[in-house]
Formats: sequence, C-alpha cells, structure tokens
Amino acid sequence: MPKNIFPLDSTKSFTEQEKLGHNRWHPDIPPVETLKPGDTFRADCREWFDGAIKNDDSADDIRNAPVSKVHALSGPFAIEGAQPGDLLVVDILDVGPIPQEDEGPLAGQGWGYTGIFPRSNGGSFLVDQFPDAYKAIWDFTGQTATSRHVPGVSFTGIIHPGLMGTAPSAELLKKWNQREAELIATDPNRLPPLALPPEPKDAVLGGLTGEAFAAAAAEGARTAPPRENGGNQDIKNLTKGTRVFYPVFVPGANFSVGDLHFSQGDGEITFCGGIEMGGFIDLRVDLIKGGMDTYGVKENAVFMPGNVDPQYSEWLSFSGTSVTLDGEQRYLDSHLAYQRACLHAINYLTKFGYSAEQAFLLLGAAPIEGRFSGVVDIPNSCATVYLPTAIFDIDIRPSTDGPTQIDPGIGAPKSAD
Amino acid sequence: MPKNIFPLDSTKSFTEQEKLGHNRWHPDIPPVETLKPGDTFRADCREWFDGAIKNDDSADDIRNAPVSKVHALSGPFAIEGAQPGDLLVVDILDVGPIPQEDEGPLAGQGWGYTGIFPRSNGGSFLVDQFPDAYKAIWDFTGQTATSRHVPGVSFTGIIHPGLMGTAPSAELLKKWNQREAELIATDPNRLPPLALPPEPKDAVLGGLTGEAFAAAAAEGARTAPPRENGGNQDIKNLTKGTRVFYPVFVPGANFSVGDLHFSQGDGEITFCGGIEMGGFIDLRVDLIKGGMDTYGVKENAVFMPGNVDPQYSEWLSFSGTSVTLDGEQRYLDSHLAYQRACLHAINYLTKFGYSAEQAFLLLGAAPIEGRFSGVVDIPNSCATVYLPTAIFDIDIRPSTDGPTQIDPGIGAPKSAD
Amino acid sequence: MPKNIFPLDSTKSFTEQEKLGHNRWHPDIPPVETLKPGDTFRADCREWFDGAIKNDDSADDIRNAPVSKVHALSGPFAIEGAQPGDLLVVDILDVGPIPQEDEGPLAGQGWGYTGIFPRSNGGSFLVDQFPDAYKAIWDFTGQTATSRHVPGVSFTGIIHPGLMGTAPSAELLKKWNQREAELIATDPNRLPPLALPPEPKDAVLGGLTGEAFAAAAAEGARTAPPRENGGNQDIKNLTKGTRVFYPVFVPGANFSVGDLHFSQGDGEITFCGGIEMGGFIDLRVDLIKGGMDTYGVKENAVFMPGNVDPQYSEWLSFSGTSVTLDGEQRYLDSHLAYQRACLHAINYLTKFGYSAEQAFLLLGAAPIEGRFSGVVDIPNSCATVYLPTAIFDIDIRPSTDGPTQIDPGIGAPKSAD
Amino acid sequence: MPKNIFPLDSTKSFTEQEKLGHNRWHPDIPPVETLKPGDTFRADCREWFDGAIKNDDSADDIRNAPVSKVHALSGPFAIEGAQPGDLLVVDILDVGPIPQEDEGPLAGQGWGYTGIFPRSNGGSFLVDQFPDAYKAIWDFTGQTATSRHVPGVSFTGIIHPGLMGTAPSAELLKKWNQREAELIATDPNRLPPLALPPEPKDAVLGGLTGEAFAAAAAEGARTAPPRENGGNQDIKNLTKGTRVFYPVFVPGANFSVGDLHFSQGDGEITFCGGIEMGGFIDLRVDLIKGGMDTYGVKENAVFMPGNVDPQYSEWLSFSGTSVTLDGEQRYLDSHLAYQRACLHAINYLTKFGYSAEQAFLLLGAAPIEGRFSGVVDIPNSCATVYLPTAIFDIDIRPSTDGPTQIDPGIGAPKSAD
Repeated sequence: MPKNIFPLDSTKSFTEQEKLGHNRWHPDIPPVETLKPGDTFRADCREWFDGAIKNDDSADDIRNAPVSKVHALSGPFAIEGAQPGDLLVVDILDVGPIPQEDEGPLAGQGWGYTGIFPRSNGGSFLVDQFPDAYKAIWDFTGQTATSRHVPGVSFTGIIHPGLMGTAPSAELLKKWNQREAELIATDPNRLPPLALPPEPKDAVLGGLTGEAFAAAAAEGARTAPPRENGGNQDIKNLTKGTRVFYPVFVPGANFSVGDLHFSQGDGEITFCGGIEMGGFIDLRVDLIKGGMDTYGVKENAVFMPGNVDPQYSEWLSFSGTSVTLDGEQRYLDSHLAYQRACLHAINYLTKFGYSAEQAFLLLGAAPIEGRFSGVVDIPNSCATVYLPTAIFDIDIRPSTDGPTQIDPGIGAPKSAD
Repeated sequence: MPKNIFPLDSTKSFTEQEKLGHNRWHPDIPPVETLKPGDTFRADCREWFDGAIKNDDSADDIRNAPVSKVHALSGPFAIEGAQPGDLLVVDILDVGPIPQEDEGPLAGQGWGYTGIFPRSNGGSFLVDQFPDAYKAIWDFTGQTATSRHVPGVSFTGIIHPGLMGTAPSAELLKKWNQREAELIATDPNRLPPLALPPEPKDAVLGGLTGEAFAAAAAEGARTAPPRENGGNQDIKNLTKGTRVFYPVFVPGANFSVGDLHFSQGDGEITFCGGIEMGGFIDLRVDLIKGGMDTYGVKENAVFMPGNVDPQYSEWLSFSGTSVTLDGEQRYLDSHLAYQRACLHAINYLTKFGYSAEQAFLLLGAAPIEGRFSGVVDIPNSCATVYLPTAIFDIDIRPSTDGPTQIDPGIGAPKSAD
Repeated sequence: MPKNIFPLDSTKSFTEQEKLGHNRWHPDIPPVETLKPGDTFRADCREWFDGAIKNDDSADDIRNAPVSKVHALSGPFAIEGAQPGDLLVVDILDVGPIPQEDEGPLAGQGWGYTGIFPRSNGGSFLVDQFPDAYKAIWDFTGQTATSRHVPGVSFTGIIHPGLMGTAPSAELLKKWNQREAELIATDPNRLPPLALPPEPKDAVLGGLTGEAFAAAAAEGARTAPPRENGGNQDIKNLTKGTRVFYPVFVPGANFSVGDLHFSQGDGEITFCGGIEMGGFIDLRVDLIKGGMDTYGVKENAVFMPGNVDPQYSEWLSFSGTSVTLDGEQRYLDSHLAYQRACLHAINYLTKFGYSAEQAFLLLGAAPIEGRFSGVVDIPNSCATVYLPTAIFDIDIRPSTDGPTQIDPGIGAPKSAD
Repeated sequence: MPKNIFPLDSTKSFTEQEKLGHNRWHPDIPPVETLKPGDTFRADCREWFDGAIKNDDSADDIRNAPVSKVHALSGPFAIEGAQPGDLLVVDILDVGPIPQEDEGPLAGQGWGYTGIFPRSNGGSFLVDQFPDAYKAIWDFTGQTATSRHVPGVSFTGIIHPGLMGTAPSAELLKKWNQREAELIATDPNRLPPLALPPEPKDAVLGGLTGEAFAAAAAEGARTAPPRENGGNQDIKNLTKGTRVFYPVFVPGANFSVGDLHFSQGDGEITFCGGIEMGGFIDLRVDLIKGGMDTYGVKENAVFMPGNVDPQYSEWLSFSGTSVTLDGEQRYLDSHLAYQRACLHAINYLTKFGYSAEQAFLLLGAAPIEGRFSGVVDIPNSCATVYLPTAIFDIDIRPSTDGPTQIDPGIGAPKSAD
C-alpha cells in the first residue's frame, strides 16, 4: 500500500527502467532515493536473472543462465541520519509477486521457477549427484504453488526476499575481495568455482558513470554470498511481519533488496533456488543509533520472524551424518550431514514414483525445514530435514502397505548437453 | 504406564542393577528382553554419566567426566521376527525424568545438568572460545526448567531421548571402526580428539562374559556418534508422540535407548549437552518387513515428530556465515556458519549482563532452533539460530532503549584448572 | 493478482460505481458477472457503511450510522452450470485493504474503525453495560494495527471477509421473512430491535429497476444476519487460504461478498465490529455437483481455514457462566456466559488504566478467541475468552507486583447524546 | 514427581480410601492436607463416577449412572495464609491417567469412556436428537486415543482436569442454592432437570461427621455446574503447563480437584463427556495476596493455558445459526447456534459411514474447537465447530469424488430401554 519509490515495468529489462538498480555491492553507488526514519515505502523487485528464465519445458536457460548479471537489486535506499555504527531496522510489511499481472513472460507474473544449476554453471548443493541442469515451473494460485513438472504436490509458499542488505564500506569491501581471492587462489580452475571474483562484465551500478563506474565495476563485490551486511542470506523465514536489524557501514546505510522467492526450503539447495520471481516488497525503516556497539552486532543480520508463516503440523523427517557417500568419515561436517539427509529424502521420494530430479526440485522449493540436530558427537554431525506431509496429494508416510505410486507426468525438463 | 521391563534403582550404579545394559555397540551383546511386534513397554534410563555429575556449584566433575563410561544404555531389546532389511518402527509414547523421585543425588531426580566440555575432555562446539569446563544445574518444576546458574530464564523443556538405535551387524561395525580409525590416524594426538576408538576400559556389555566380553570390548563401537543405526543423533524433536523408523541390521533388531534430555537446543552445542538426566521412556515397537528396500532407507533414522512440542511464537534470531573469527574465508562450511551464528547470539546476550558461559549454557539447554538457511551461495553458507523471547524474564529485543541488565547471580561454575 | 471484475473507485459512493452491487438478499438480483468453474478473479469491496464513518475523534457517526444502507456487497457473481443442490467451492486466495491507497477519507485507505453501537442504533453484545456510542480508529502498518484511541497495543490483523454467501431461492427468502417477522412480532418496539425487517429505503439491488426493483426492495432480506446461504457469518477464521463450501439455492449460485475486516475478535462483540474497511478479495470458484445431498450440507457454510493465521502462543483467558449480573441463574445459556467472560476481561483491563470502552473496543478488534468450554453442566454454561498477551506493550499477566498502569491517552471518543 | 498427598488405591471405592475426598461443595469440609505457598504436590483423582462405568459393550451403565455420587473430588487442600480476597495461583505441572496401571476395571487404567447421557438421566447437549444412552470406550496408547466403538480415528488427547476450584463461603453457598432453587422452581418436573438441588443421598464430605455432616449434606452444592469458585468448568485447555487463578472465599482457600479427562472437545457435548478417567495431577500452589481486588477478579477462573497442547493445522469446520430445527427464529442464541453447528458436523460424518451416535461421541471426545463466531448479527448468532482432519484415517474433506465409506464396526453400544 505505501508509495512505490522504485517502480519497475515488467515489459522492460532491468537496465531500461526509469530508475536503475544495481547488481554489485559498492559503497560509491549513489542512493536512488532517500528516506526518513519511520518511513514506509514499496519497491518493485526484478527476478534475479532479469527475465532470462522462461516459462517453458526446457532447462537450457538454466544451463546458460547469465550468472554475471545477478542479482538485479532495487536500491540503494538511503536513510537520513544513518551513520556507521547504527543498526538499521527494517520491517517487512508485505511481499509478493508482481501485483495485477497474472500472466506474462516474466517470472512473478503468476509463475516462478526453480532450477538445478549444472556443474558447468555454478552447481548445486548436490552437484556430484546432479551434475546437469533441470528446471521446474511453478504456478501461483493465491499463495499456493503447484507445478506441471512436479505433480502431486501443492503448498503454501513461504514468501520472502532472498537478499537484503546495507552497502559495505570501502574497508569492508576490500576485506571481502581479499579473503575471497585467497580462497579462489587455492583452486582457481575449480568447477564449480569456489567463489566469484569481481566481474566488470554485466555490472550494473545505478547512477555511477564514467570512471567512477569503471572503478566500482572493477572491485564491486558479487552479490551471490551473504556477508557482514546481510546480503544474499536466503533465510526463508524473512516473511511478512519480520523485523530485521542490519549493521550500518556507510552514511545513509544504503539499503538494497531483491531476489524475491515465492517459497524456499531451508538451504535453497538447488541454488537457482527457492521459487524465483519478481514482485514487490513493502518496507518500513528506522534506526537504532549506535546500536552496533550497544547490542554487539557487528555483522550479519539479527531478525525476528513474522507470525504468519504457513503452519504445518505433521512432518516426515530424514537424518544424515558426516560420512561421505563413498564411506569416508569426515570430522563434524554439518554441511555434509545435511547433504546426506537431503539425499535420503530424495531417494525416499523416488520410491513413490518421483524422479530424483523432481524430488530435488521439490526440496528446493517447498517450505521444508533443515536443522542442525547434533554438532558435537565426534566424529559425526547429525543434520535433519523435515517435509510437511500435507503438501503431497498422496500419503507419503512409511507403512506396511508400501508406497503409492504417483504419475510423474512430463517430468522435470533437463537441458540439452 | 506400560510394564517396566528395564527397571533401574537410583541408589545403585549402572553396573549393579538387576538388569545390565551396555555402553558400546556390538552385535554380540545379547538382548536383555524380547518383545513382539505391537508390544508397548517402559524402560528406565540411566543418565549418560551414571551419576558422576553432581548437583553442586563446581565444574570439576565436568572437567573430569569419565568419557570412557558413556553412554549408559538400556537394552538391547529384541523384537521377534525382525530381520536385517526390515524397518523397526518405534513410537515414543512418553518420556520424562525419574518418576516419583523429586530430589536426590542423581540427575533426573528433580534436576539435570548442562556442562561445557573443556578442551582437555572432549571439547564443545565452541571449544576455541570456551576452552574450560563450566556447568549449570537446572531444576525441574513440572515440565519447566530454571537454573541458579543461569538466572532470569524459564522454559518448557523439549524432553526426548538423545540416543536410540539398533545393533550394528558385524560388517557394519567393522566399517565403522575402519573409517573412524582412518580419520583418527590423520591427527592421532589432536585435543580434542577427532573420534573415539574402541576402548575396553569401562566397557559394559550386558550379558557378555569371558572371552566373548573381551572380544567385543576390544572392537565395540563407542556410542558418542550417530551412525547408520541411528544412535546418538541428539535430535531434540524426538519428543513424545514421535514415530521413528530404524534400519535393522541383525536378527531381532536389538534396540537400545538412553541419554535422556529434559531439553536441548539444536546442535547440543555444549556437548555435555542439552539438560542431561536419567528417567523413563515408554515405547511401542513394530516392524515393516523388508522396509529398508521398499522405502530405500538403508541408514540413519527416518522419523515423524510428535505434535506436542512446546510452542513459542516470537523468536530473536542470529545469522552467521562461513568466515572464521580470524577473517578467513571458508567454502560453504555450514558447521562454521552455525558456530558464528551461535557466537553472535552469545555475544548479544552478554550485553544484558549474562556471562558468555551462561549464554552458551543456555543455548545448549533451551529449545532453540538451528537452521541451514543458505548452503549454496558461494562461498558463504548462512546458518541461523532462533531464541524464543518468552523464555527470558526481561525483554531481550533490540530497541532504542538499550538492553536491560539482569543480575547474573553466582554465575556458571568453572572448574579449577 | 487475478483480473478485477468488480472494480470500485474510492472517490465515489457505492451507488455511483461503474458496476452496481447490492445491499439486500434477493433471488432476482441479476448477476453482475458470470464465471466458469475454476475461474479466479478479484473483486473490490466497499466498507460496509459506504464511507459514513470518518477517521476523526468523534463517535457521532457511529451513533447515526445508516443501518438501512448496509452491507454494501460486491456481486452477485454467477457460476456457469451451478444448480440448486450443488456446493459452491470458494477459495480465498488473498484479501486486504484498498491496494495502493495509504491515506484518504475511506476506511480501508490505510485505516479502519471499530464502533460500539449504542442502544439507539442497533446495540452491541454488551448493550446493557455500554448503552452509548464509541469509536476507535485503527491505523494499518502492513498487517499490523495500532490505534490512537486504544494505546499500548499492536497486533497482526486476522484479515477476512465478514460476509460471503449465495443468493436465496424465492422459497428460502420467504421462509426468512416469515420466521424473522414472527420474532419481531413478539416485541415489535424493542430497542435494540430483535431483527430487521425488509426495508425499501436505501435498498440497492444491482441491475434491478422499475417494478422489479420495487418488488424486490419490498421483500429483500436484510444482510445483517448469517443464514442458510452463509451471509454475514463474521467468522474471523475465513482468512487467506481458506476454502468455503456454500449451498446453492438458485441457478448460477449468485455469490456475493463484502464487509471486509482488517481484524476481529471471536463474536465481533461491538457489532460495528471487527476493524471495518474496504479493500479487495481474490477468489477462485468451483462446483461440487450435487454436493448438498452427497455431503448432507443443506445450509450454512462448511469451511477449511487457511494456514497463515497469526500465531500467538501465550494467552490470558477469562471464563464466565450463565448467571446474570443481577445474580439470576439462567439455564445453559452460552451466549450469556460469553458476555460474562468478556465483561471479566474488560474489567480486568481497566485495572491497568484502560477505560472500559477501550477494553471493549479492543476485544472487538483484536484476534481474541472465544470458546464454548462447557455447554452441559446444568445449569451453567461455561464460556471462555482468550487474549494474546503479546499484543500488549506491557505485561498484563497477574502477579504479586500488581498491574502496571498505561497512559490511556485521549481515550475512545464517545458520541454526543 | 512431587509427593503424593492424596493417594488412591484403584482396587477400593472412593469412600474406602485412606484419605476421604468429597462430592459436594461446602465451606465446612475440613482440609485433608495443608500446604505452604510455593509447594508442589501430587494428588490422585478418582474417575467422576467412582468406577460405575465398565469397559464393555453395553451402555446400560450410562443409562443408570449414579448422578448423585458425582464428582469424586480430591481435597480440599488448604494453603497456609490464604484469606478471602486473595487469588490462589495453581500451576498444573502434570496430569495423566493412573500411572503404571495399564489394565483393569477402573477408567484410567489404560482406557476411558465417553457416554451420551439419555434424557432420563441428565441428557446431553443434543438431547432432543439423542434421547437414549450410548457409550464409547477409548483405549490409550501413550497420549493417543482410539476406540473399538468409533473406528477409523486416532488423536492426541488434550489431557486436563475438568474440575478444579476453591471452597465457597457460607454466603456464597447460600446464594448458589437460592438462585438454583429459583430456576428449578420454574419447571420442577422437567426431564432432564434444569439444575440439581442439594442431595444428602450419596453425599461424601471428607472429614465431616455426625450433625456437621448432616447439616452440610443438606445444603452442600452439587458439583455439576461451574460457578464463581471455578468448579466444573470443563475447559479443555487447562492442560499441562497451565496457570490458573482462583478467587479465595474461605480461609485456606480449600482447593479441590477431580474429573480428569484424557481428552475433550469444546463443550463436552455428550455430558458424560470428554474421555473420563481416573489418574493423577501434579500441582504447585501460590498466592497473590489481595489479588481479587487488585485485578478485579471476583469470580470464575482466570487462566493462562500451557504451551504443549496437541497441534493440528488443518480443520474441517461447520457453522450454525440460532434457528431451531423446526425453523423457529431465536434471538441471538449462541447456545442453539453451537447445537446446530454440531448437528451439521454429525450429519456430515454420517455420509462417510459413521452412525450419528458415533459421530456425536467423537465430537465429545476429540480435541475439537468450538467458537463464538458472530454474537451480534441480529437475530442470528453464528457458532462454529472445527474438526482436525488428521484424526481420521480417511480423507474427510469434501471433494468431487464423494465420501469414502468407513467400516463402522460394532458401532457404539446403546442401552436397553
């Protein structure tokens, strides 16, 4: 309902809009608007790939997705009086797909997508088991998602922004670039890469032009990872009603937002991920002056989730430990343990007729819970993943009757090699 | 309510009981009782350290805790007709502290404990920040826990067994020992150790005697880690009403249970861990013949949590990424990200007057949620930890008023060096 | 997001809109649009008093509210193929205040109202204790409501349509008029009245004109009560995600909707009621042919509430029994018992500094729960009302410290006599 | 876990126990034990009919149930220092069926019962539709209830005491007797009766003897209704973790408890009702001195429900209005509206193969929700009843497929005439 200070035209690309956003983090990107503490506003948000992914039955667009172009962010928005050391308070008043556009070629116009990134283009959480590109298109009916590519499921989306954050200071940006370069240097040719270095190609930097643009494009941080400023945290619980506290690193805070998801499971495990869409977000901003010191919050977001998340009361859950598929014992590796738990869930669902890719896409998109259950029981971490049983048309609980078989339909599209 | 087939006398040690349990995994340990599918029964459970930890204001017992004696398990219980390849169905009908014993020297008699294991004795999830031993005693009033060592909090415990599992086959046991030995061999003198090898000292093996005892003690797997058979998963959501499915590896399944917790946060991050107690558990067992193949469940538990977990509706949440405290960038390390999230929470709570150790103990004991939020956004994993605000007497939400100060009281006891 | 088939212009009155709705039930009102089973659509909804209530600090508009004009309904919408005996399936995809209009003179433009109807104009659930007119204006920030007239509270609205229903058949309409006339006849001059008879004055009947209008206006049923066709049920749980099943009494079903509430407590006890607003609703319609017989649903709505209602986990609750304030024992009167429970809650809140009217308005507006607890324990019914404690800025739980005092501010406006 | 100060022997009748309780309210009944503020204790509770109802397939015991003997209450328990005007704080620490007695002839020994009272013996909420006696036996497996008399359902019980309260003062007792006598006098021969007058026959009055007994028996209030002192409120939400505040009317407060339910739907609509059982309750008592004035709580309990109630997230709901089955319009009669809603639910379930009596018994026993939805929309109240869909083995949602048929089994036993 509040005034839209960052309107987007669905028929135009991200760079042709009336107001220009950005797809790199840099302190020099000038604010596109300035707000007062207490202000509420709406911003439209472009889907993260700016329309490159189509509502069709091919995954070639996922295989070729232009990673150098992401994320198409709305902002930065400056807050009057914000100074380094403050905490920026952001209330998510509402968030959803593109209003009043129920059909069209842009994700967010009544539909969204989940893609499994292939090894050649970023890879996923389970890249070793799923090296190729796959896609699922999800149709929105109100807050409910269904898919012709993953039949027999229907769930209430847990709608949220995947990415919100404040601008880094020059010092912080330098730190990011340095530590990530050091990591990349350990295996520079790895596929998928360990991290993404600054990339001037396809950089969009709002109002910057000329030499300032060139300088910032050369060092602007990529938006893929979450960092001290929040950023691409992909926390599925940042839903309507959530209050988030961000550290402020530059005068004005220079807050940006994007990467809206119609839904997502914990982890966003397919990478291209959740159910991606364009849409809108209504925010209220405020300040806690000096809050970083007062509360000891120097980095990463602190947040209070809203109270209208979809409620499910019955869950089928899988556990995994930090032993590799090859049987190698790793030491307290919760990341691996969650991979194993997710693989268990995927394998289980194939017994009901789903392809492994369909099951993987579903875990990326549906509001599944992923928990650190045990992190100290040497040498094995234990991770768990929880699937709400009510999202399935059939009964997926284990029983003496054995699994009912679904009709997998046309299946999840796979890209040509 | 069902018949108690494994009664324990609180005044006697684990090895002096009428029926003898075990503290190692081995296929040769004979069942202490045999049940039919569909049977319900009660088993008493000894607290995992068999009474070594006292209800006092010293943490010396934590520093010296006899790790070679854990876990004091009740069982094994055989199920008639169970064969390798089946799924064992276990319903948790009820679980709680020692009935009708409201006071006494044994954890579970109206109280329990959380310990931070020191580097010299196992270490914790945050051993680098907390190298020393600390302890908190929790008093039970009904299902509510409070502590003189962590004042100003009160929460409904999420009562569950930390450890349940089936006996490994000889082959599986061999695989465990081999892979864990290989890990240990990479850094055999590490403190804390990477894993715990078989240890005949203090081994308790139920009805085994003589040479059979010696052979099994020499190769019996330690019970600390979760493994293919379930085991010490420390899943806080295995509460009353939960149904768990375990793979069966030996005829009879040979199911065991122990390590009851009055409550625990996701991860059991202090290691000694959750709120430890002795008590009882009421179970119902059944079989899905051939279920391992039918449902593709070859390892680790599958489960459906019960529907009476404590409900909290407001959470203060912290996020962390996979950058070390020294600023080194790690690649998608969710374990590290969760450490950083927990450290953020601990640091935050110190602004309200808690010592860091009090905050750490609280996170280990209270029903906090730990989630894998982003696991693909190279190079940073994002993990999140959720604290229910209602468990605090004061308002711990960030505000322009700044934090209220609690009286930390006598603090959490620290061991002598 | 779906196509708006009943757009309203906020600057024009209900009767001046492009498409004309209705404020009486009558089978002859022609459909304003015809839909197919499976269609989704948006309809704007006018606030029930068509703008007569102002965002000011006077309750004169409540005292004089034009009851003959309510409810300003959107529709009727016909569904192709619907026949008497079918069940109409209505999915509430979304519902909210007037989009993109954050301020203005019309309820729904960023604000809404709750009024206590005076004895002279309809009365309330507690008319004997509150004979005069009062009003509270609520401001919307996202999904949160606050009020200058009821300070110190803030809650997530439970947004829903107060009124949805199908058109009655001629026979059903006749039955309504007859049975309500018989009731009125028992005390025709009662204040407030027992029921509202047909009233040609201010009747709005969509496309009807001339004699057809006159005939229908003379017998059209008032929209205040819920009846066999659903109607003004004021069920606060008809929120986003809800599926409702309505009996069909005329060909096409002729479904209408209105009386949107930003929030409401169980009972809508102030009568003018909940937090009234104009706005929009997105619906999907479908049919179960012959469903009335198949499922034995001859009257009143059957429904499945959505799963995104606001979650509160701590409640302060009050009980009441069927003894009048004068001490007279009534026989199993749950209506009276709920009045007594509500009066207890109101009286309790006055101990914290609220005026009784402020407390009453709050119970009408906030998502309180009202339950039939005991309905058989002769001679006393027991009813209970549950207030979420989190909606209050202060701690309202009873304690040995006694109640904290709030500043009641300007209070709730009362009408001139 | 706390000390049992009111032990009961399951093999003996209520009057043959070591400590004698009571089944009438009277200020002169001496306390059976005296506690200090802050004390915790356990009390055993006898099922309300003292064993008259059998675990069999006949409902004759329901038809003949000895109403003059109820309720078999444990207590009174005095609290040191309690004075009229105080609030007694009662924490429900735990409550459950008879521990360690899984089988036997007494309700609570692994089973409980629901009865439909016939017109000749008290009647039910729906006595006009169900004039005869019926019974269902429920078996307990942990916290889950199932029944051979109502097949195809299984639910987590919402365990609670139906009756808790403080002793009335002599003045209060006199008021009760007077107002109830006046009600009875309006139709003294009504069947079922309007209320139950004092009845010396079968009176049990704890330690009272001789003339004191005779005097108290002659005027002691029956325990069926809830009143100012709390009493038989049958609030299903008084579960484990609940804190209740009771007015104190006599020195010592003289608190009593009984009528435990393994589960109950809102309203306890069958009268003999919920799932009746004997068992235990663990309580903690405290005082708010002068709290009745401080908080304006002069009568009826105020309470804060616990946070471990069973969670269900999908509900099928029915609504009703205040029109009689004969088509007579009543004025805002919520009691009638709830009857109509319940009848709708019952009728609906018969379409799936249940007998009407099975459905009625289920609504009395399962944790259904009953709400006052609209109480002001003249002339019709709207009441709603919510059934959790997950308690049914089959899918009971309306669909185009029509209802699945269950096998009703042996049905609910009906009494001989």
